[in-house]
Amino acid sequence: MTVKHALPVSRAQDFAAWYQSVVAEADLAEESGVRGCMVVRPWGWGIWERMQRLLDDRIKATGHENCYFPLFIPLSYFEQEASHVDGFAKEMAVVTHHRLVSDGKGGLIPDPEAKLEEPLVVRPTSETVIGAAFSRWIQSWRDLPVLINQWANVVRWEMRTRLFLRTAEFLWQEGHTAHATAEEAREETLRMLEVYRDFHENALAIHVVAGEKPENERFPGAVATYSIEAMMGDNKALQAGTSHYLGTNFAQAQDIRYQSAAGGHELAHTTSWGVSTRMIGGLIMVHGDDDGLRVPPRVAPWQVVIVPLLRDNADDKAVIAYARDLQSDLSAQSALGEPVRALLDLKPVKAQTKRWSWIKKGAPLVVEVGPRDVAAGNVSVIRRDRLYRPDGKLDAQVGPRADLMANAAAALAEVQETLHAQSAERLKKNIRPASQWSDVEEHFADGQDAPGWLDVAWSRPTGPALDRVVERLKALKLTIRNAPLGQTGHPGDPCIFTGDAAVERVLIGRAY
Amino acid sequence: MTVKHALPVSRAQDFAAWYQSVVAEADLAEESGVRGCMVVRPWGWGIWERMQRLLDDRIKATGHENCYFPLFIPLSYFEQEASHVDGFAKEMAVVTHHRLVSDGKGGLIPDPEAKLEEPLVVRPTSETVIGAAFSRWIQSWRDLPVLINQWANVVRWEMRTRLFLRTAEFLWQEGHTAHATAEEAREETLRMLEVYRDFHENALAIHVVAGEKPENERFPGAVATYSIEAMMGDNKALQAGTSHYLGTNFAQAQDIRYQSAAGGHELAHTTSWGVSTRMIGGLIMVHGDDDGLRVPPRVAPWQVVIVPLLRDNADDKAVIAYARDLQSDLSAQSALGEPVRALLDLKPVKAQTKRWSWIKKGAPLVVEVGPRDVAAGNVSVIRRDRLYRPDGKLDAQVGPRADLMANAAAALAEVQETLHAQSAERLKKNIRPASQWSDVEEHFADGQDAPGWLDVAWSRPTGPALDRVVERLKALKLTIRNAPLGQTGHPGDPCIFTGDAAVERVLIGRAY
Repeated sequence: MTVKHALPVSRAQDFAAWYQSVVAEADLAEESGVRGCMVVRPWGWGIWERMQRLLDDRIKATGHENCYFPLFIPLSYFEQEASHVDGFAKEMAVVTHHRLVSDGKGGLIPDPEAKLEEPLVVRPTSETVIGAAFSRWIQSWRDLPVLINQWANVVRWEMRTRLFLRTAEFLWQEGHTAHATAEEAREETLRMLEVYRDFHENALAIHVVAGEKPENERFPGAVATYSIEAMMGDNKALQAGTSHYLGTNFAQAQDIRYQSAAGGHELAHTTSWGVSTRMIGGLIMVHGDDDGLRVPPRVAPWQVVIVPLLRDNADDKAVIAYARDLQSDLSAQSALGEPVRALLDLKPVKAQTKRWSWIKKGAPLVVEVGPRDVAAGNVSVIRRDRLYRPDGKLDAQVGPRADLMANAAAALAEVQETLHAQSAERLKKNIRPASQWSDVEEHFADGQDAPGWLDVAWSRPTGPALDRVVERLKALKLTIRNAPLGQTGHPGDPCIFTGDAAVERVLIGRAY
Repeated sequence: MTVKHALPVSRAQDFAAWYQSVVAEADLAEESGVRGCMVVRPWGWGIWERMQRLLDDRIKATGHENCYFPLFIPLSYFEQEASHVDGFAKEMAVVTHHRLVSDGKGGLIPDPEAKLEEPLVVRPTSETVIGAAFSRWIQSWRDLPVLINQWANVVRWEMRTRLFLRTAEFLWQEGHTAHATAEEAREETLRMLEVYRDFHENALAIHVVAGEKPENERFPGAVATYSIEAMMGDNKALQAGTSHYLGTNFAQAQDIRYQSAAGGHELAHTTSWGVSTRMIGGLIMVHGDDDGLRVPPRVAPWQVVIVPLLRDNADDKAVIAYARDLQSDLSAQSALGEPVRALLDLKPVKAQTKRWSWIKKGAPLVVEVGPRDVAAGNVSVIRRDRLYRPDGKLDAQVGPRADLMANAAAALAEVQETLHAQSAERLKKNIRPASQWSDVEEHFADGQDAPGWLDVAWSRPTGPALDRVVERLKALKLTIRNAPLGQTGHPGDPCIFTGDAAVERVLIGRAY
């Protein structure tokens, strides 16, 4: 059966154009007219608010407190940690003046009289300014650990931007902690990686692989970087969250020391970890289809949207009353551990247009009611995860109102589970082992459709040997995504790059 | 009785030094080392999060949706609305470069090769960039009203800063709406003013006067500006929130037009309204005392803090178990319509130090438990709004655990009510009518202690006549705060400034 889908372009046809069309048609975000900065529209922002709420609960439940640090960082702070500045120096917004004046021709210019003595950098990340605070706050072992987090906007100048995936300004949370020992700090690093994994799988319904990044992909200044990697609808990878063990590198640069119980002055061990609005890009590329986005119920701003069929006649009043009653009864129910979020859409727009707008936005359940439904005590329910019947027609199921009331919570839980199962299935199906370099070349040869990732053994080379590996992969547009955690025993094959004895297995693939 | 208070300086002795000492001793915020930017510490940020949650609920309940607009605004946007740029031009952070490079001497400089063609301004407020979006979004009367809000950081360069009250970077919400008619837009302006009033009185326990600002105090580009004014502990005024009717000024400058039902192209009427982290400064100056802050229970991150008396001996285990049980039972209760927020403080610090730290932070209830309490089934409760007994000793009331369980919710409601009643009482007591200018001069003469505000009749002069009024007031360090809403009938006296027939009464006073 051919189905006429809601989007003008299909995912299979042109993934990049399809992505843009979901962002636009689901009213998620738009270009702002300001280079690299996006406007996040109410539906997109509502999803972000839900993500924030659910992740923030987990961050607080693991003992962290939120605070807030300055947007601006003095340029000199970046000179302190050498490898950190190397990593970021090329892409920062720099404030040099603090006043505008008239140019005498009706326009405005930065006031030459108001030039800052020391330029300020708009934070690309806050290790340096938070490290300075840690240095003030931490005196004794009794002050440790310090476990803090902030939700903030950051700016990294990007030449090519794509909404949510790569923007100059983006929103994120950045956790920063300081500990007495390396062991505790490493535990924290992995604890937060696990929080990210759990949040992705259970809240976002996105299955991921948690693992350690290779040396060349480490955060500037880190001793170890871990990531969760998700598989998108085109089988490319998206790094969806990272957690860094920073050793004593930042503590050394910023003098974060504590008096130990024994009386010595020790350097603290620090960590940092973050996820960003990029997750919304991941949500689109994992759960989107040819009819738009499908939002997992746990992060859907509205889980059930009620669309009344109004005709501008005497029936309308009864239809609205019936719909309002539905909304109120659904809102009194609980699904997935929270009150159901039900919206009654009364905008002055045709019901047909509203229906498709909510399908494109990906509301899990759309409930339509018209005069005949009111008379019969019925509702018509569209479930976003099973939109069409086998004959290709939209599967709007008409049934008694009581059935919706009895089944709504279970249906929402099922949509959540279905989306997660599909994501897990895609990941499982599209990771294959390879034991020779020629397999890699063949697998990722031009013209192969959505090749997924390969799982290969390697000897974890460093320095120039690693550079050569990176170059070989780069020629095929590949990167090492991570070395999955929990590997036990011998990796099986010799190193696919060097032929030496391997020490672990890593995933390689194309990525966003 | 003389009481030995927790702060090193009393409110009566030196209000400004006292304010700083509350901010520091209650761990609310600190200077960051970055000019004009603050670090908001966990307790201060927790209060802000509570404020956000409760105000955001009210903003959504009145039909607004949150979204997010860019941090950066191209300089040219500010050239569009002439009076708007006049109002802000003197105090903005300007981004001129997008990259740093090595200066060849181990330092960094803005890369001369990476100078922006058009400088970007860090938003001081978002009317211009949101107006540009409205212009894209609004085509027809069916698109109206547009009711949006954003929570964001903004920057206004300030020469003299004071934590929370005046900082270069601050956090706020800014609501922006567009309507078909002036009437609807004016209604919206007053609706949101009322939301702010209600939020201040019921959530922050701060009594306020809602009214219209005089012409000279209007937001740049506004047709009418309304404010809520709160009275601080030194009887000065703090403008705690503003709501602006912008007429068609911004719509004209930014081409926000809609096709009416009749087919014509009409300019939309817009509004904006905001409150900021300044409210935390207000909270301190209204509810603080010589022992630190007193946080109204509705916005207290922790409403009940349990401090176990530990001795590093065998009793500790039982004390911790007893305290944990208390925390769990209190958390299962509901107070002021929400689950009780109860913390068990297990930091490795002396109980005495913890007790005073929570008193200074202003937790509404501090509950102490030691081995003797465990044996007797007792708890010792300190209520932050009645800290001392008549004999000047700390009023820690020992009583059965069961009494605390029976009374905790009521006690929290009482603390909330007491703080509000005290704020309302101060406002009422310190506003006095005056009918002649000489009364004003006398009332605000040098050496008068905490003179409060005067309530005077005026003829609402404009232009040069208003300038003269402003000058006369300025000589006494006074400003017109607002003309309270709800005035009916004749103002009674002739204009205190001009002697002409008066049209309304206004409040005048000193302000932050």
